[in-house]
Amino acid sequence: MEPLNVFEYELLAKERMNPVYWDFYAGGSDDEVTLRANQADFARIRLRPRMLVDVTQCDTSTSVLGQPVPMPILIAPTSMHCLAHPEGECATAQAAGAARTLMIASTDATRPLEEIAQAASSPLWFQLYIYGSLEIAGGLVRRAEAAGYQALVLTVDLPVMGNRERSKRHAVPMPPPPLVEANFVGIAQEDLGQFPVTWNIIDWLHVESGLPILVKGILTAEDALLALEHGVSGIIVSNHGGRQYRSTVRDCRCCGRAL
Amino acid sequence: MEPLNVFEYELLAKERMNPVYWDFYAGGSDDEVTLRANQADFARIRLRPRMLVDVTQCDTSTSVLGQPVPMPILIAPTSMHCLAHPEGECATAQAAGAARTLMIASTDATRPLEEIAQAASSPLWFQLYIYGSLEIAGGLVRRAEAAGYQALVLTVDLPVMGNRERSKRHAVPMPPPPLVEANFVGIAQEDLGQFPVTWNIIDWLHVESGLPILVKGILTAEDALLALEHGVSGIIVSNHGGRQYRSTVRDCRCCGRAL
Amino acid sequence: MEPLNVFEYELLAKERMNPVYWDFYAGGSDDEVTLRANQADFARIRLRPRMLVDVTQCDTSTSVLGQPVPMPILIAPTSMHCLAHPEGECATAQAAGAARTLMIASTDATRPLEEIAQAASSPLWFQLYIYGSLEIAGGLVRRAEAAGYQALVLTVDLPVMGNRERSKRHAVPMPPPPLVEANFVGIAQEDLGQFPVTWNIIDWLHVESGLPILVKGILTAEDALLALEHGVSGIIVSNHGGRQYRSTVRDCRCCGRAL
Amino acid sequence: MEPLNVFEYELLAKERMNPVYWDFYAGGSDDEVTLRANQADFARIRLRPRMLVDVTQCDTSTSVLGQPVPMPILIAPTSMHCLAHPEGECATAQAAGAARTLMIASTDATRPLEEIAQAASSPLWFQLYIYGSLEIAGGLVRRAEAAGYQALVLTVDLPVMGNRERSKRHAVPMPPPPLVEANFVGIAQEDLGQFPVTWNIIDWLHVESGLPILVKGILTAEDALLALEHGVSGIIVSNHGGRQYRSTVRDCRCCGRAL
Repeated sequence: MEPLNVFEYELLAKERMNPVYWDFYAGGSDDEVTLRANQADFARIRLRPRMLVDVTQCDTSTSVLGQPVPMPILIAPTSMHCLAHPEGECATAQAAGAARTLMIASTDATRPLEEIAQAASSPLWFQLYIYGSLEIAGGLVRRAEAAGYQALVLTVDLPVMGNRERSKRHAVPMPPPPLVEANFVGIAQEDLGQFPVTWNIIDWLHVESGLPILVKGILTAEDALLALEHGVSGIIVSNHGGRQYRSTVRDCRCCGRAL
Repeated sequence: MEPLNVFEYELLAKERMNPVYWDFYAGGSDDEVTLRANQADFARIRLRPRMLVDVTQCDTSTSVLGQPVPMPILIAPTSMHCLAHPEGECATAQAAGAARTLMIASTDATRPLEEIAQAASSPLWFQLYIYGSLEIAGGLVRRAEAAGYQALVLTVDLPVMGNRERSKRHAVPMPPPPLVEANFVGIAQEDLGQFPVTWNIIDWLHVESGLPILVKGILTAEDALLALEHGVSGIIVSNHGGRQYRSTVRDCRCCGRAL
Repeated sequence: MEPLNVFEYELLAKERMNPVYWDFYAGGSDDEVTLRANQADFARIRLRPRMLVDVTQCDTSTSVLGQPVPMPILIAPTSMHCLAHPEGECATAQAAGAARTLMIASTDATRPLEEIAQAASSPLWFQLYIYGSLEIAGGLVRRAEAAGYQALVLTVDLPVMGNRERSKRHAVPMPPPPLVEANFVGIAQEDLGQFPVTWNIIDWLHVESGLPILVKGILTAEDALLALEHGVSGIIVSNHGGRQYRSTVRDCRCCGRAL
Repeated sequence: MEPLNVFEYELLAKERMNPVYWDFYAGGSDDEVTLRANQADFARIRLRPRMLVDVTQCDTSTSVLGQPVPMPILIAPTSMHCLAHPEGECATAQAAGAARTLMIASTDATRPLEEIAQAASSPLWFQLYIYGSLEIAGGLVRRAEAAGYQALVLTVDLPVMGNRERSKRHAVPMPPPPLVEANFVGIAQEDLGQFPVTWNIIDWLHVESGLPILVKGILTAEDALLALEHGVSGIIVSNHGGRQYRSTVRDCRCCGRAL
């Protein structure tokens, strides 16, 4: 059956994937109350459509940070695409190119950022987690610049990993061998511990790189204002798909307040 | 079992109809969240009944555009009644006559507007979709006038067909042969493409016909005011039964704001 | 199993009763949306209990129209108790006496009002429907006075019978023979048609009887004020248990507004 | 299966416990609408997490009445732990010690307060019910002081036992023999009737003991203010887990109003 909407794609994926990997993608943190709330909150949004407007030449194109995109839909950074397909993030980059939209590649990719860049035919941004040390993070930033990534997206809502109970139940290392954290080949896992990401990391990042910086994971107006004071080029409002904090405000509702 | 309410008529219809045609009638657009919301919203309405009033001589009659009707319930325009009954819209017109109420016949009828008029014994309005060209639409308007239709109802919320997934799944042409779009016999399907319906179409319609013009599908106060500025005689607030836009405001709730 | 709460009594009754009679008691009007809403609305009420108060000598007694009752719970008028038990309303009157509370006997009783009065050991009020003529109603009022009823409760929300679909489905006459409308023995059914009950009926009732008059079925503040202007001694806010009008305001919510 | 969250511990407990004892712990009062509402109300709470804060040195420690605790989670007083485990409240006290948090031991314990104190390695408070007489209660207070308990928690929302229908259905005495109300060994059950607990009991308690006094079960701002006027050191807002009053305000919502 040909899928007609994203829910049907989701069903197909569930049928075809290793159930442990599926749970990694589909699960949320804690008792998943926030994961479910996200979906319910979207269903409650009501639009006020205007009529009698000529839509024969509809143009959904826009630009993000000066980058033209044919629609206001980007590919959010998600980790470990090789769990779902052998080509992993390289396949996603090809799909982004086919849709001519922008992809944000994850630090936690299972293909190196340089290979993703080679597979891409539309622009890329690099999502940054800081593991181990600023030196390691700085290395990633320089590699991303060299590979042509056009912006840095610092994820700010993962000071520690969310309490993902499905993953704890399965107790399978992520990524599972032979897959690897492809951006960290040659660095020992014990050198990649959680690094404290605070507001002054943004200042450090401005010094480290001339690329525009966005922050992902802001949920309050207070933090949005602080982000602007720290010179960010953009804010991605998100509750990490219900995978990090339990019982947060709803990401589709707090936008208005934050911005 | 004799049906006691509209829900029981609906069940009977579902039992008797071709399931593909049933889905055409019963389905909504996208994931049908708006279809379901319409029904839930109606259930939430609360009335404040007044007591100790003499109701032995209840009179529900009223008038619409000067046309007396025995109750404030008209027959909304719906398409392709031959899917449900061989007599199609002619049977509906006979039923309207038996109830002495007004029927709005659809451009997308499976019986020609003239035959519907012959079958009718109560007044008719003509619902207008503009397909192909203003010349074709103007022809329909003149035929409706000649056949005695007393008003024109321009549907404004279908610039493109809603994303009706049940119909996409079935992939059956509508109307299915041997049924035809009875008002367009002799015109090739490829000459009946979507025509951009904008506010100036109302101005054109005023020139084309002296009949009163209503617009159907307005959902915002802003559009209601614009409609009045364009000289409409009436506004039918509707979200097309949840068959067009996803996640619109609720039609039974936005009336107050729009009017 | 000994019932512990009213819901368990309800289950027992359902098990033991003729299903047609059960539906007469349990059903609501139309699609029963108001019946269900009544129950949900009660569950939503939240109380604010005060603590550290001496409750060893709790006294729930109060008075209604000067009549002492041991608790603020009376027996509402309901019809045709012989459907549930051979002793019918006489048994209910005995139960009221055992609980020392007040019973409102219905015009639609299946035992005559005089027999109910003989069975009673606590005070009675008489609920009045006006069928056929004021002469017939006046006769009931005089009989109620003679039998010692202490107030009249005029039901105002039944100008016509609610659309009770369960009863229509069963199509069993109510009361079913050999049961009879015990207060109308000797009067032909065709002489007992619906009589228009309007505000001036209250004035007529004041002339007809010196008993205090209450109105039952008021749902708006406007009607409550009118009732006071017509000299009523009490107002019973009720939506007739969801058996009359569809989609009314909630009886447990409109009290505050009406009073 | 290793439990990952409190709901999974609950499932394990249900599997292992005598069903009658399980119902004693899990049940609420009346139709348990308040029990269910408590859980639903907690799920509705939304937090507004702040980002980019250094959490490597998180410190959840705080203090209650000057007593340091490593997290703002104490062990609420609950009765009859021997229903769940032979060691009863002594085991709970050991667990509290392992977590270095404070336990509030119940008057209704199945192990004497002195034994609980011996098992404890972190501080204890004593929850007080007043049964029989102030003399008996005073005896408990003096024993608690002597055993090293550091505060008294007077429960104020149990003037009578809640209407717990599961327990009524089972009709098993609590505690079931051979378990005993361990704090009342040697006192006949008939000498332990409900004693009226009113505001002046707090005054009496101040005279009886120099320990700080808290009240547990306050649900309104009015009562919170009265409690402060009576010199309490703390207020525990609670609706007794939905086990006492039906349809109370929600404990997690009324805090703001009360304080």
